[in-house]
Amino acid sequence: MTFPSIELSLPAWVEEVVDDTTKRFATAEQRMRLAIALAQRSSEEGGGPFGAAVFEIETGRLVAPGVNLVVPAHCSAAHAELVALSIAQKVLGSFDLGADPLPAHQLVTSTEPCAQCFGATLWSGVRSLVCGARGEDATQIGFDEGPKPDNWVQELKQRGIAVHRDLLRPQAAEVLKNYARRGLPIYNSRQGANPGR
Amino acid sequence: MTFPSIELSLPAWVEEVVDDTTKRFATAEQRMRLAIALAQRSSEEGGGPFGAAVFEIETGRLVAPGVNLVVPAHCSAAHAELVALSIAQKVLGSFDLGADPLPAHQLVTSTEPCAQCFGATLWSGVRSLVCGARGEDATQIGFDEGPKPDNWVQELKQRGIAVHRDLLRPQAAEVLKNYARRGLPIYNSRQGANPGR
Repeated sequence: MTFPSIELSLPAWVEEVVDDTTKRFATAEQRMRLAIALAQRSSEEGGGPFGAAVFEIETGRLVAPGVNLVVPAHCSAAHAELVALSIAQKVLGSFDLGADPLPAHQLVTSTEPCAQCFGATLWSGVRSLVCGARGEDATQIGFDEGPKPDNWVQELKQRGIAVHRDLLRPQAAEVLKNYARRGLPIYNSRQGANPGR
Repeated sequence: MTFPSIELSLPAWVEEVVDDTTKRFATAEQRMRLAIALAQRSSEEGGGPFGAAVFEIETGRLVAPGVNLVVPAHCSAAHAELVALSIAQKVLGSFDLGADPLPAHQLVTSTEPCAQCFGATLWSGVRSLVCGARGEDATQIGFDEGPKPDNWVQELKQRGIAVHRDLLRPQAAEVLKNYARRGLPIYNSRQGANPGR
C-alpha cells in the first residue's frame, strides 16, 4: 500500500497508572480519579494534559484508558476521549459500545470534550459521559476547544447519553494549570504563516 | 501492553482508485471526482458510502485518500475525513498540516463533515474544505450527521479555513441514494436496547 496505516498506541507508562486490570471502579469519583491520574502522568511524560477512560457502567470494569497522543503520534485527532473510545471498540470488536448484547458503557474524561470529541462521543454508543474540568479551564491556558452547539449537553441527552459535569473539577483543572505553569506546549494547529485566530 | 493499539488501514482497492500517485489534480472538481470515486467504490466493497482526500492546494498533489472504515475497523470515529487527515499527518510527520514550512493543504470530502469531523477539520491545520453532498443528503437516507453549530461554516472561516460547498453535489448525493436503494447498512450507533433517537 502506497499510503501508511494509522497506528495509535498507548505509552508504556499507562500500565503503571493502570496497575491492576482486575480492579473495579465502583463510583464515578474513582473513575474520574483514574482519568485525572492519566492526564497528570501524560503531562509529565511529554504528552497533552488530558486523560479519559471507558468503563462498564454497572460493574465498574475498565475497558480502555486513553491519553492525548496528538504530539507523539503526529495526529491532531488523537485526543484522550477518541483514543479511549476507539480502543474500547477494538477490545469489544464493535463500533457501537451500545450494541446488544454489550453492557452499557460510560466515558469519563478529565476535561469536557472539545468540538471533535463531542461528535465522537455521539457516535461511540456510550450511554453516559462524566466530565471533570470545564472546556473553559482548558481555554484559559490557551487550548482551543472549538465551538460546540450551545445546547451540547441537551443534544447528548436527547440521544440517550446521560451527562455529569464538574466531577472533581478543581483537581482536574489543577492538572491544566500545572501544565501551563511549566510552560509546556499548547499545540493548537495552524501555527504556520496563516494561523487563523 | 494490556490494551491494544488502534490500527486503521486503507483497503487494498484504494490503490486501484488511486492508480497513479504522480498525477496532479489541478482543479477542485478533479479532486472532488476522486473523493466521489472513493465513496462509490467503498459502498461497493462493504464500507460506508463516504470518501475524502487531502491535497496540496497549489500543486494538486494527493497527500492522502480516506474512506469510511467504521464497520470494517470496528471504529465509530473512522470517518473518511478523519482517516484522510490522520494519514496525511502521518505521511508528513506533523499533527499540523498548516505548520511551517509545509505548503497549504485542502480537505475534499464527498459529503459535508459530521459533527465530529467538523471538529477534526478545525484541529487538522488544513486551510481549505471542499464539500460535495450536503449533510441533509446523508440524513435523508438515515445517517445521523449530528448537531454542528448553526454557523459552522463561519466558524471554520474565522479560523482561516476557506469553505466551498455543493461542488458536484448531485453526483456526490447519487452515491448516497444508490447506497440506500441497495438496502445497505445505516450504521449509526446506540442500536441496542436503549437506542436514543
